Amino acid sequence: MPQAVAGPEIERLIQLLARMPGLGPRSARRAALQLIKKREALLAPLAEAMRVACERIVVCHECGNVDTSDPCTICRDHSRDPSILVVVEDVSDLWALERSGAVTARYHVLGGVLSALDGIRPENLNLSRLVERASVPEMREVILALNATVDGQTTAHYITELLAHLPVKVTKLAHGVPVGGELDYLDEGTLSAAIRQRTAF
Amino acid sequence: MPQAVAGPEIERLIQLLARMPGLGPRSARRAALQLIKKREALLAPLAEAMRVACERIVVCHECGNVDTSDPCTICRDHSRDPSILVVVEDVSDLWALERSGAVTARYHVLGGVLSALDGIRPENLNLSRLVERASVPEMREVILALNATVDGQTTAHYITELLAHLPVKVTKLAHGVPVGGELDYLDEGTLSAAIRQRTAF
Ligand SMILES: [Zn+2]
Ligand SMILES: [Zn+2]
Repeated sequence: MPQAVAGPEIERLIQLLARMPGLGPRSARRAALQLIKKREALLAPLAEAMRVACERIVVCHECGNVDTSDPCTICRDHSRDPSILVVVEDVSDLWALERSGAVTARYHVLGGVLSALDGIRPENLNLSRLVERASVPEMREVILALNATVDGQTTAHYITELLAHLPVKVTKLAHGVPVGGELDYLDEGTLSAAIRQRTAF
Repeated sequence: MPQAVAGPEIERLIQLLARMPGLGPRSARRAALQLIKKREALLAPLAEAMRVACERIVVCHECGNVDTSDPCTICRDHSRDPSILVVVEDVSDLWALERSGAVTARYHVLGGVLSALDGIRPENLNLSRLVERASVPEMREVILALNATVDGQTTAHYITELLAHLPVKVTKLAHGVPVGGELDYLDEGTLSAAIRQRTAF
């Protein structure tokens, strides 16, 4: 380990890099070296971009998206259809749907799905704000764009019950989404088809 | 892309993360989100560790290692055998050999290997300093711990010629190193055996 052969600064950088998703201890060492070699071209700008992100990125209190403004860019976009809400598990799903170009409405990020295994209960999700947003007079439809996993579908059923007293139509993505698949890994075409062919829940 | 739906700060962070080895555009987006979610636990310390690394890490003028001091910790370690130099392609190989615990001498990092394809010529490598270091009276042996690739072996032959006029023995790693393999991916045991069984070049 560099612990003994280099200063603690490199060791600390490697340890933190190893905690990033997608990087293990070995690839973290390689990444650290690459960063050090590309100090001006990559390490310095990345350190600065992280510092800026750290300082300026906030969670939108309206929808749960991450952005540098609250409300977020999407919530402030008045060209978006105010009568539809697209409910997603995570910001990565919001990004995936935005890439598909199929959503012209706003989102609601749950911050997870119900999971007995992981101990995630309704009160751990961004649900009370969802009911509020679904209750405004102009709201007509809530699209549940949740992963086609057991937990995702359990959550979809739970939300359908939660909104049953409201005059909104609750829909789900068409079964273009492969069973067991995760939204973030799908291509734009599949996501577009799934949005277009959404069915009543 | 978040470009349109979030501030440019997130987009910039993703773009820079995508340039790290081991992360593509998709995993860079996931990594960015994870970092944002773990702002206090990961993003802030990582930003700071990168800033510190950026400011303090230097290349050792003696051996080419990276460290926060010049000469580096290894070059300043007077318990190391001054009669042997271990020549490596890259700092990652130095780290791999240090993990094996089989080296009690100092290193010389070439910063690459000769490559017609990549246009890497002798003047692009840290060779003149190697000749100087191999020329000191106490030097007895230069171990060429280069990758068992065509370019690595070409470079080993080149260095052997370069040092032929000196009274040093030039050795290479034993053939515990798999043909075509790269040092940085080998386990500590194989590296130890390769160091112990080194043969005359
Ligand atoms: Zn928002
Ligand atoms: Zn050194």
